[in-house]
Amino acid sequence: MSLFDPLFRWEAVLACFSDRARLQGMLDFEAGLARAEARSGVIPAGAADAIAAGCRAELFDVAEIARAAALAGNPAIPLVRQLTALVAREDREAARFVHWGATSQDAIDTGLVLQLRRALLEVEAELTRLGDALAKLAEAHRSTPVAARTLLQQALPTTLGLKAAGWLDAVDRHRGRVAALQRGALVLQFGGAAGTLAALGSKGPDVAAALADELKLQAPELPWHTQRDRLAEVATTLGLCTGSLGKIARDLSLAVQTEVGELHEPAAPGRGGSSTLPHKRNAVAAPVVLAAATRVPGLVSTMLVAMVQEEQRGVGGWHAEWETLPEIVGLLGGALHHLSEAVAGLEVDAARMRANLEITQGLIFAEAVQMALGGTLGRAEAQELVEAACVRARAERRHLREVLAADQTAAKHLSPEELQRLFDPQQYLGAADVFIDRALAAHASKAG
Amino acid sequence: MSLFDPLFRWEAVLACFSDRARLQGMLDFEAGLARAEARSGVIPAGAADAIAAGCRAELFDVAEIARAAALAGNPAIPLVRQLTALVAREDREAARFVHWGATSQDAIDTGLVLQLRRALLEVEAELTRLGDALAKLAEAHRSTPVAARTLLQQALPTTLGLKAAGWLDAVDRHRGRVAALQRGALVLQFGGAAGTLAALGSKGPDVAAALADELKLQAPELPWHTQRDRLAEVATTLGLCTGSLGKIARDLSLAVQTEVGELHEPAAPGRGGSSTLPHKRNAVAAPVVLAAATRVPGLVSTMLVAMVQEEQRGVGGWHAEWETLPEIVGLLGGALHHLSEAVAGLEVDAARMRANLEITQGLIFAEAVQMALGGTLGRAEAQELVEAACVRARAERRHLREVLAADQTAAKHLSPEELQRLFDPQQYLGAADVFIDRALAAHASKAG
Amino acid sequence: MSLFDPLFRWEAVLACFSDRARLQGMLDFEAGLARAEARSGVIPAGAADAIAAGCRAELFDVAEIARAAALAGNPAIPLVRQLTALVAREDREAARFVHWGATSQDAIDTGLVLQLRRALLEVEAELTRLGDALAKLAEAHRSTPVAARTLLQQALPTTLGLKAAGWLDAVDRHRGRVAALQRGALVLQFGGAAGTLAALGSKGPDVAAALADELKLQAPELPWHTQRDRLAEVATTLGLCTGSLGKIARDLSLAVQTEVGELHEPAAPGRGGSSTLPHKRNAVAAPVVLAAATRVPGLVSTMLVAMVQEEQRGVGGWHAEWETLPEIVGLLGGALHHLSEAVAGLEVDAARMRANLEITQGLIFAEAVQMALGGTLGRAEAQELVEAACVRARAERRHLREVLAADQTAAKHLSPEELQRLFDPQQYLGAADVFIDRALAAHASKAG
Amino acid sequence: MSLFDPLFRWEAVLACFSDRARLQGMLDFEAGLARAEARSGVIPAGAADAIAAGCRAELFDVAEIARAAALAGNPAIPLVRQLTALVAREDREAARFVHWGATSQDAIDTGLVLQLRRALLEVEAELTRLGDALAKLAEAHRSTPVAARTLLQQALPTTLGLKAAGWLDAVDRHRGRVAALQRGALVLQFGGAAGTLAALGSKGPDVAAALADELKLQAPELPWHTQRDRLAEVATTLGLCTGSLGKIARDLSLAVQTEVGELHEPAAPGRGGSSTLPHKRNAVAAPVVLAAATRVPGLVSTMLVAMVQEEQRGVGGWHAEWETLPEIVGLLGGALHHLSEAVAGLEVDAARMRANLEITQGLIFAEAVQMALGGTLGRAEAQELVEAACVRARAERRHLREVLAADQTAAKHLSPEELQRLFDPQQYLGAADVFIDRALAAHASKAG
Repeated sequence: MSLFDPLFRWEAVLACFSDRARLQGMLDFEAGLARAEARSGVIPAGAADAIAAGCRAELFDVAEIARAAALAGNPAIPLVRQLTALVAREDREAARFVHWGATSQDAIDTGLVLQLRRALLEVEAELTRLGDALAKLAEAHRSTPVAARTLLQQALPTTLGLKAAGWLDAVDRHRGRVAALQRGALVLQFGGAAGTLAALGSKGPDVAAALADELKLQAPELPWHTQRDRLAEVATTLGLCTGSLGKIARDLSLAVQTEVGELHEPAAPGRGGSSTLPHKRNAVAAPVVLAAATRVPGLVSTMLVAMVQEEQRGVGGWHAEWETLPEIVGLLGGALHHLSEAVAGLEVDAARMRANLEITQGLIFAEAVQMALGGTLGRAEAQELVEAACVRARAERRHLREVLAADQTAAKHLSPEELQRLFDPQQYLGAADVFIDRALAAHASKAG
Repeated sequence: MSLFDPLFRWEAVLACFSDRARLQGMLDFEAGLARAEARSGVIPAGAADAIAAGCRAELFDVAEIARAAALAGNPAIPLVRQLTALVAREDREAARFVHWGATSQDAIDTGLVLQLRRALLEVEAELTRLGDALAKLAEAHRSTPVAARTLLQQALPTTLGLKAAGWLDAVDRHRGRVAALQRGALVLQFGGAAGTLAALGSKGPDVAAALADELKLQAPELPWHTQRDRLAEVATTLGLCTGSLGKIARDLSLAVQTEVGELHEPAAPGRGGSSTLPHKRNAVAAPVVLAAATRVPGLVSTMLVAMVQEEQRGVGGWHAEWETLPEIVGLLGGALHHLSEAVAGLEVDAARMRANLEITQGLIFAEAVQMALGGTLGRAEAQELVEAACVRARAERRHLREVLAADQTAAKHLSPEELQRLFDPQQYLGAADVFIDRALAAHASKAG
Repeated sequence: MSLFDPLFRWEAVLACFSDRARLQGMLDFEAGLARAEARSGVIPAGAADAIAAGCRAELFDVAEIARAAALAGNPAIPLVRQLTALVAREDREAARFVHWGATSQDAIDTGLVLQLRRALLEVEAELTRLGDALAKLAEAHRSTPVAARTLLQQALPTTLGLKAAGWLDAVDRHRGRVAALQRGALVLQFGGAAGTLAALGSKGPDVAAALADELKLQAPELPWHTQRDRLAEVATTLGLCTGSLGKIARDLSLAVQTEVGELHEPAAPGRGGSSTLPHKRNAVAAPVVLAAATRVPGLVSTMLVAMVQEEQRGVGGWHAEWETLPEIVGLLGGALHHLSEAVAGLEVDAARMRANLEITQGLIFAEAVQMALGGTLGRAEAQELVEAACVRARAERRHLREVLAADQTAAKHLSPEELQRLFDPQQYLGAADVFIDRALAAHASKAG
Repeated sequence: MSLFDPLFRWEAVLACFSDRARLQGMLDFEAGLARAEARSGVIPAGAADAIAAGCRAELFDVAEIARAAALAGNPAIPLVRQLTALVAREDREAARFVHWGATSQDAIDTGLVLQLRRALLEVEAELTRLGDALAKLAEAHRSTPVAARTLLQQALPTTLGLKAAGWLDAVDRHRGRVAALQRGALVLQFGGAAGTLAALGSKGPDVAAALADELKLQAPELPWHTQRDRLAEVATTLGLCTGSLGKIARDLSLAVQTEVGELHEPAAPGRGGSSTLPHKRNAVAAPVVLAAATRVPGLVSTMLVAMVQEEQRGVGGWHAEWETLPEIVGLLGGALHHLSEAVAGLEVDAARMRANLEITQGLIFAEAVQMALGGTLGRAEAQELVEAACVRARAERRHLREVLAADQTAAKHLSPEELQRLFDPQQYLGAADVFIDRALAAHASKAG
């Protein structure tokens, strides 16, 4: 465990990308290959069993493979060498057939795909948990008024429920995108040295189909050694997701400000202290998620730059992916898990929300008044009247309601009761409830 | 037309993102809004006609709007002001209802969506043209042998047809992704000042549905002002596509090298000259496409960073998208069009390809020999024998075939005829043909 | 003028990168080259005059050059062709010597360097203006207390003066970095087709020295066609600067929040309105600067990726710079100018700052109390005591001072007068004044 | 050691950024702080000794700190807690003064600065080694002709010496930039909770000066908690360096192509094999360096995005730096070390270079002929004549020399001897030697 792993990453995803998991991914490929080749009659059945028996990561020396990889240029070469030696100790004949007809890239790419499959299932499940927590929040606070803020200025009343529904709506889209990757992006890589499977003669396609079946992966139309769009799509899809998580975290970080105080991350012993300030209760999830949203875009751009790979094997582009893609999944996983926990335990201060709606002394209801007047006065005239009233209210530090009550034109079009109503946040929420219902219905239907 | 537009961009896409097209996008929103509100009984039918009549970009002064936007913070505010004045000159009553219940972001976002819809149709069509050209190349050269190169070293023979099929396969996936954006990402933005449509009372959802219908856009579950994943997905999807085009261009740039000379970009008067070198025939498409593949990843990362938008309207993140997303579409469009033309007119030098296969004096067939020997000798022993033969062939500058013919073990397992066959590229293409067929079939089925 | 130029860019910098300025940059190179070659006796003196006479951008057709560049692969080729024709009309003999011994890249790179020289002088001057405005702010508000916020929680009192001094300190460093570019990065490019100046025989170095003298540029040790670190350093240096401007803008955007209200961007008619909300007074500079800080990092990464240029002329990397570097300068220029104006006219609400310091009911002074107690109680015990008091104060919604006054241990170590003093922000500002003095002195010394 | 560390990183740099080194960096800060405070009379001298005695990383439990950091939000909080407990076991009194007046960020930032100082010295030394190896190559091959290639087409002859001099020139600039960081960017961070050093009363500046002295770091004008330009400058400077290394590696990767074969990375047992192809000798350094040049730009953009940090402590931006900056140094270190070794052992095939100069059948000397003719015929006419001759030579597959010998106009201006000379690469190297001398002299003077 590295110093920053527990802070920035999530154990469930991290486990998919340990060195051992990486070796196992490649070994699963080698075992599957041997079995597929036995099924296709390319190698003896006994050889496949002997090879598969050796394909257990714990039998290998990571440090030795790491050192040899620095010379060989990739870890598959020393891994295959070690595996061959290992199998040979039990069955010299079988050892001949290790890695038969395959190339390093087949093992490395397919191994990575297998790791991604497992990790993305974790991500999908956690997106579901986050979505559920947001849905609960949206439902519970569908009538909790809060200031909507545009360019960080209070604009209109909205509800915490609608804010949560907006977050939920995005999270649900991301869950759909991540699920789609399982089908569309995570496919077998198997082409042999140059993508022709020449070493297998005419049996290449049969072996490929059997191998896909062994590994429960989709078989692509053709090998994709230097066509990296599917793996890059994993990166961009997770990049999109991280962006939306960052948006939620930014909103949280603003809501917990001392001067706003509408939301608080869940409290826990040892959580969010300060090394010097005794009164501080710092957000922990928000910085972690925002850090991920700051880091992942650069990593995604790396994956896109790396797509430009030469001919049948890239010089550097391929190598640039090896740590970058796992890093993206890791950072997203950490952000997601932190946020999911924070949302599930979020403390809501509805009284403070209500109090904040009064800070502008009624200015936040200016549009409500303007729309009410606009129907009879016309939009332009109403806007002019209300703008003037706002200026006066601000200058005289009076409540906009009072200023309007004293305005002859306004008074002519609005009764005192109507005026009172116009300054009640519950009366100016438009379709907020409809939108919440839709987001919840969509979430429920997808969860089904 | 700016100095670099014809070089880096494509007219058909550029036209979608001119200043005038940008104003028209917003004006289409305003016209559609007026009609939708008339249909829903929110504003008088006559007002809608009067407003729609004014929504023609050529009636507006771009420079004046540009200058006012620098003060106001966005171009929708002065545009709505100019539109209101314009309508008022014909119909003072109608002018009251301009932009009724909407916010700047509704106009700006929906306007951009309308521009993207048109531009992505062009991109999709050009991807089809590129795919068709690649399919033709794959079919025509399915039996043209060429060296496959891994890490820029000749590895094995493959065919130009399979290289083209690999390019095609990726291009077809991108066409599918771009088409999916039309359904999934390009949706109406309409939420009013804070996403509640409060200014429309209970009629918000009706107006939104009518507006989507007017503009032939999908209606989302709820307004998405600061949920930018759909627009960012346009960026990432085009980023993926640019990466694959860059890969093809890199391959072309390598194939046209003086020392390789297997492919040439089409010749044309004035094309690819040099300001000082009379004999040069420079590639033009490859640098342009590679420039795009270098630039777009950074722009995509910008779109991802910009997703972190505050509350109900972002401070800077939203603004960062305004030029970035059109720039991505523009650069992709230019790269795509250049590449499409270059592939359609590509000159193939099959004789040079064949000659290049002889450069290694048979070493490129080493795997073929090794696999042939491996069946009887075992993979490890065969590899050892062939490696030694390669070393000898290299050291003595002899053809590998001769070295093997003189080797006792090799001679024992391989007859002279078998040995001859093993050095014929046509005999070691594995499943190349099968893979070409699959790529062509998939392309044909999608084109249907 | 494009729709977003006035909003995102600054005229003074924009003028350096117009199409016409770009042509003029290349033409200045051609004129300087002719004069240098005449001085070195490479071409006739009369030819130099005739060539120089034609090197005026207004004599050229941008659109035609743009179209021809799309075929030729760069704009220098058609420009040289047009220039040759233009000169030939006056002096056929002189026309022979246009672009003598040079290559497209010499003209394009040196032209860009000349444009950058002019633009960076503007940037430097504006950094001085911004620094001056910040220095004034730091001086004027050296005693204006305001809450320091860590992780957006009020932490301690500080002063607006120290906040401004921190901004100033960074701005002054950036001014130094930009000034250093003029000496270190903006050097002549002149190497002929392949960097040997072979076409000039033995006179290459003489001509290069004379050319540098003509253009008042530093001469490098050797031509740098594909060694792009100097131009990339312009990008990274401006990238750093944009980041610091973004930090200031983020601080402004937080300070203008409705719930904070400590600072306001200057008011002006038409500035920062809303298309629907009559009471809004939106920030304009902050979003623009933050948009630049969001966009420039991606562009900088493009410049870094583009450094990997092949052999003696890059395939795509070079081309990727042509629009990217000017875009970086343009966005920085716009951000800088907007921010400079906003800071110069900033409205400070010191009363609100003071009021905000009371929001925590004394918790913001917790460290002051803890340090006062720590000397006698020890840091750990003092922290424990104060933390407990904070918890109590928060739970009982009482002022921390009152809670402490009622605490026996605290009362034992702190007299009522001492306690009172500990809750006065002016008494807990540490070295704020010293730091302000240092920043002002450093600024004054650099301005000298 | 992680699986990819030996391949992508360099031990000497990696050691500076291990978890233990990270803790030690923070502990060095804490020890220095205690000593500085004792020197300034802020804490008892005995306390400083007791604290310093505990500041040894091997006494701490990384995993426990890592887990606690995930709750606390940063690793300094649990580290200080553990340190306090550790000191208390020996000296309860001294434990009171651990971390006195400091904040987490002081420890984390200064700790990182200390790690960077050590790592950048390693980088600087390795840049010297690389520069020396390049200088040797430039000197040894100053007369070895090789084709210069623009847009990957052979353009003119140049020398391997000049190619190496160009690489050297850039490497020397980077060494200068890295050395400048030691003075300009690596400064003490010490400001206490909010940058005022309030907890130290009036002694803050004295303690800061003493602390800088203890740690042998420069003291800045003022604390820089959220002014991140110096650390971001480390990132951009190393980013520039990585770009230039990538350029060299790209050149190597092109030179080792089967069809070019002019350079080879050093051979070693187990180096650059293939898992299936017995004849392959793959480059190892080039892919690793190019992978770094692909990855670092995205990481640099992250550092720039992260500069936008809120108020007195950032929410996420600061956190985003913690792993990113070390990752940049690590990747650069690995690339640098790999390249340095590859250049030192580079195999040069001068015969192949000479043979490649003949591939164009004299076209590569077209400019030489054109310049020779241009003096009498004029540039335009000469270009026309030579272009036509090139076309003919290409069409008829004849040597350009023969075609020109048969051309009447050419024959009139060039004697057979002159013509012969024009096709000798040694005769058309321009100022190559002068430029090599300059690069070598500059290198020697800097090394002095």
